[in-house]
Amino acid sequence: MCGTESPASINRGSLPSVNGNGTRSPTCSSDRVLNLEQGDPSVFQSYWSKMEDKCTMVISGSQLMSYISDFTTLCWFMEPEFQEAVRRLHRVVGNAVVDDRYIVVGTGSTQLYQAALYALTSPGGPEPVSVVSAAPYYSAYPEETDYLRSGLYKWAGDAYEFDKNGTGPYIEVVNSPNNPDGTLREAVVTNRGDEGKLIHDLAYYWPQYTPIIRPADHDIMTFTFSKSTGHAGSRIGWAVVKDKEVARKMSKFIEMSTLGVSKDSQQRAAKIMGVICDGYKNFKSDELFFEHTRRVMAGRWERLRQVIDRNQVFSLPKYPKQYCLFSGELIEPYPGFAWLEAKEEEEIDSQKVLRGCIKVQGRTGSRFGVAQKYIRVSLLSNEEVFNQFLERLSTIKSMSSNGH
Amino acid sequence: MCGTESPASINRGSLPSVNGNGTRSPTCSSDRVLNLEQGDPSVFQSYWSKMEDKCTMVISGSQLMSYISDFTTLCWFMEPEFQEAVRRLHRVVGNAVVDDRYIVVGTGSTQLYQAALYALTSPGGPEPVSVVSAAPYYSAYPEETDYLRSGLYKWAGDAYEFDKNGTGPYIEVVNSPNNPDGTLREAVVTNRGDEGKLIHDLAYYWPQYTPIIRPADHDIMTFTFSKSTGHAGSRIGWAVVKDKEVARKMSKFIEMSTLGVSKDSQQRAAKIMGVICDGYKNFKSDELFFEHTRRVMAGRWERLRQVIDRNQVFSLPKYPKQYCLFSGELIEPYPGFAWLEAKEEEEIDSQKVLRGCIKVQGRTGSRFGVAQKYIRVSLLSNEEVFNQFLERLSTIKSMSSNGH
Repeated sequence: MCGTESPASINRGSLPSVNGNGTRSPTCSSDRVLNLEQGDPSVFQSYWSKMEDKCTMVISGSQLMSYISDFTTLCWFMEPEFQEAVRRLHRVVGNAVVDDRYIVVGTGSTQLYQAALYALTSPGGPEPVSVVSAAPYYSAYPEETDYLRSGLYKWAGDAYEFDKNGTGPYIEVVNSPNNPDGTLREAVVTNRGDEGKLIHDLAYYWPQYTPIIRPADHDIMTFTFSKSTGHAGSRIGWAVVKDKEVARKMSKFIEMSTLGVSKDSQQRAAKIMGVICDGYKNFKSDELFFEHTRRVMAGRWERLRQVIDRNQVFSLPKYPKQYCLFSGELIEPYPGFAWLEAKEEEEIDSQKVLRGCIKVQGRTGSRFGVAQKYIRVSLLSNEEVFNQFLERLSTIKSMSSNGH
Repeated sequence: MCGTESPASINRGSLPSVNGNGTRSPTCSSDRVLNLEQGDPSVFQSYWSKMEDKCTMVISGSQLMSYISDFTTLCWFMEPEFQEAVRRLHRVVGNAVVDDRYIVVGTGSTQLYQAALYALTSPGGPEPVSVVSAAPYYSAYPEETDYLRSGLYKWAGDAYEFDKNGTGPYIEVVNSPNNPDGTLREAVVTNRGDEGKLIHDLAYYWPQYTPIIRPADHDIMTFTFSKSTGHAGSRIGWAVVKDKEVARKMSKFIEMSTLGVSKDSQQRAAKIMGVICDGYKNFKSDELFFEHTRRVMAGRWERLRQVIDRNQVFSLPKYPKQYCLFSGELIEPYPGFAWLEAKEEEEIDSQKVLRGCIKVQGRTGSRFGVAQKYIRVSLLSNEEVFNQFLERLSTIKSMSSNGH
């Protein structure tokens, strides 16, 4: 085992410059920890730098001051321009059915996930409804479900387990492509009549990450500005919802949670989505957004697979090629995270080893409901950090010895 | 009783153009319902229109893209410029102690209220902690406390009642100046050692609404961009917190709730607060923000009191003059809401009467934990709506007959 430090749970306050613990091994290529634990989408920034003039948002001091956007609509705090831009973007990409569907804006998809739980469970019965997702599941679901100890719903873990042994009403969250492992997914709990409800978290169902195999058409689908265009700092997400009452309850949740959603950011999102769509309408851009970002992600995956193949320390999931309706080609998925599995030892703590040996901070498999030999590493960093990551990763020759 | 319609609970979807119910009486001055139920702060818009050049926010397509603002700080999603602007504004106004205090940014003070409840109660004991506030209390507290049926905390109503009959751990929310009635307040539950904790909601503790009688210095104080400058659409609030662990937990709540707060809006808030503070530094503005807005509010209150005195149908609270540290004068409060009490009858439903007779939509006293002869009406509308409101109000001669 390389290194004996115990960096286990990361203290965000100590990043990115790391304290004494991490500086023990003189062969580590740099003193700076590469924080690849979160999925901060810096990779797309260079594209937007080239588009600055078109995307610049200007807001005068007296604009967007009201709580209200349109009191005649169900989601009264949603800017009409935002709703229009969302519908247009989905029509251009073809990744979701939006005709005859309700749109609900949220403060990122994090808030919309909770809004959906509320909408599907309130006013609530004597027991909280079980919330499940197939392991490995997105690490934030358990915490976001349970932090308030709600009487409406409770986290009940792996959907496969629930399918075998669980009883009673449940909500299954289907994350597709799945964070952390990038697979396209469907619900796994066997249909039980009225007992089960579904939330589809489609944050990564965009052409830079995956083939668009069909226009998704589920009861509740959530998306986010963070992963579609890379604008995480704006905290904008949206849901596409079939049922009016569910959409109304989700809006009510957001009203009670934050009394609406930043209009400044809604307008900025509308503008940026508009620029993407205009590009596809006019074909005037040097390189269109999804083509550019897909090319970048493809390049990263190719280089990553080379390092992984050479090292023989980790394995990566294999993804089948599928026909993409958006590009009209048979293409591979290029997920936003590398889901690494240590080959050598069942019991190894990959997060600890990567942090100790090469000062790369990923997120351990145990946070996703699986073994700690798995680790999730973000591939969405800027180019410099990504290059550093590959350089450091290539120095690991074994997980169980100190040779790297 | 004037009118027999039952507009009782307002359907937001039907505002501002009203349906058949409201058009019965031909003497009502207009068919349009004046929605003065929410406190949308449109009154300040004209000031910002004059300041447009100075306050214009410009954001290029590649700015503010990251989730992270500063990972070395406790509230890692808070823009440093925002924090600086908040501290500066409080120093200029003198309404809160900010030295050696933590600042936590939130998606409006709505989110910060819930963050404070979480911070004061997690991980939680066997029973939820009682949350109380002296009646009449802000109508959103009960709903925001109970909508998720949290096991950490539960709404327990009027703090005066709790003081008499309540037992166990509690949180008292002190809203000062109080929404709806504009009074300056202190905690009312008698100190019980370690059992009680306080949240001070100081949304209206700004010079346009109230004399600044001292720099507030409480454990947790929440403020909002919506009421300080009138920018409700940006959904920006902040808390000033004494205890580091409480501030850390509040930040953690916001991370789990919305994974941060719109950076676009944080930067816009910082800019606008900066313009206000620059004004007081340079004294170059024609009229400085708080002087202007106080003058407008004073004018509205003077005209409102004239109508109320003439009608003899409602009474308004009387507020003592107090010395204001900010202006250096003995001044009256000019709250953002009129808290009207029908004089004639104990059992009257003022909301129903105002809606039926003059098509003014206020919020009934029963939402604030008191009798429905009380009604809260926003005084923060734009000038045209405010004038219409006074005009319509002056036509009411009696609550119990149909004469108006």
